[in-house]
Amino acid sequence: MKKVKVESLVLDKLNNSPVVILKVEGTKKILPIWIGACEASVIAMILENVSFERPLTHDLLLSMVEGLESKVEKVLINKIVDSTYYAKVILRDLTVTEEENEGYFLEFDARPSDAIILALKTNSPIYISNELYNTYTLQYDGESMDNDSEEFRKFIENL
Amino acid sequence: MKKVKVESLVLDKLNNSPVVILKVEGTKKILPIWIGACEASVIAMILENVSFERPLTHDLLLSMVEGLESKVEKVLINKIVDSTYYAKVILRDLTVTEEENEGYFLEFDARPSDAIILALKTNSPIYISNELYNTYTLQYDGESMDNDSEEFRKFIENL
Repeated sequence: MKKVKVESLVLDKLNNSPVVILKVEGTKKILPIWIGACEASVIAMILENVSFERPLTHDLLLSMVEGLESKVEKVLINKIVDSTYYAKVILRDLTVTEEENEGYFLEFDARPSDAIILALKTNSPIYISNELYNTYTLQYDGESMDNDSEEFRKFIENL
Repeated sequence: MKKVKVESLVLDKLNNSPVVILKVEGTKKILPIWIGACEASVIAMILENVSFERPLTHDLLLSMVEGLESKVEKVLINKIVDSTYYAKVILRDLTVTEEENEGYFLEFDARPSDAIILALKTNSPIYISNELYNTYTLQYDGESMDNDSEEFRKFIENL
C-alpha cells in the first residue's frame, strides 16, 4: 500500500471528463482517475475551500457515520477492473474498544471519487494498492498540473 | 405531518432548474421543491429504474447505515427558511430494542433532495410538516405532470 495525496483536478479534453490526479508520497509517480462531474464539483469545492450552507450528500453521510458512533479511518483505492477503479472506505467502530475484535473495522465498497471526498472531508489518509502503484502510476516530471484549473472551473460552472 | 409521494420530476424553464413534485396522499395538493442537477439525475435514475453498476453516493451511505446496524425509518421535509427547504432523515438504531430508549431513533439534518433519494431507495415514507402543508402546497387539478419528462431527460443527458 502506498499513501497518496490529491494533487489536482484536471479536465480530460478528449471527452470533457474530470480527472483527479493522485500523487504517491515521496515519489514523482501519479495516478490519474477519471471521475463523474458531480463528484468533481464536490472535490473542487473542497480544494478551493468553498463551503455550502446546507449539508451536501457526503456531509450527510459523515454526520450519520458520526451519529452511529463510527469514523472514517482510511480509504484504499485497490483495483481496476474493465477500466473501472474500485475503492474501499474503512470505518472504525468507536463503540468497540478491543483492537482484536473483528467488529472494530468495517469495509465498504465505493467509487474512488466518493472515497476521496470522504478522506478529504475527514483528513483521513488515502492509499493505493501496490498493484495499482506498480502497474498504473505514471512518472511525472513536469510543471505544476494546475494549468488546467481555469478551464476546469469553467466546466464546473457550466453544470 | 402529511404523507407524500414523489409525483414527478419536472424542469423549471425559467432558470433551467429541476423541480421534484411531491403529492400529498389522498389530496390534490402538491409541493414543488427546487433541487440540484446532480440530485435530480439520481432521482431520475430511480424513477426510471435505471441501475448503475457501481455504488453511487447514496448507495454507499445506505450500505454504511446498514453496516452500522441502522436503517432509514422515514424522512420529513419540515420547514422553509429564506426560500430553502429543510429536511430530516430519521434512522432507527437496530441495536437498541427498547422503544423507550432515547437512542432508538436518530435525526439528521439534510437537504430534501438527499432525504427523498434515501426514502425512495429504501421504500421509506416521506412526510411534510403541517406548516408546509398549510402554507406552501398548491392545488393541482391538471393533467399528468409528466409532460416535461422528455425535456427533462435531455437536460439530464447534457450534464
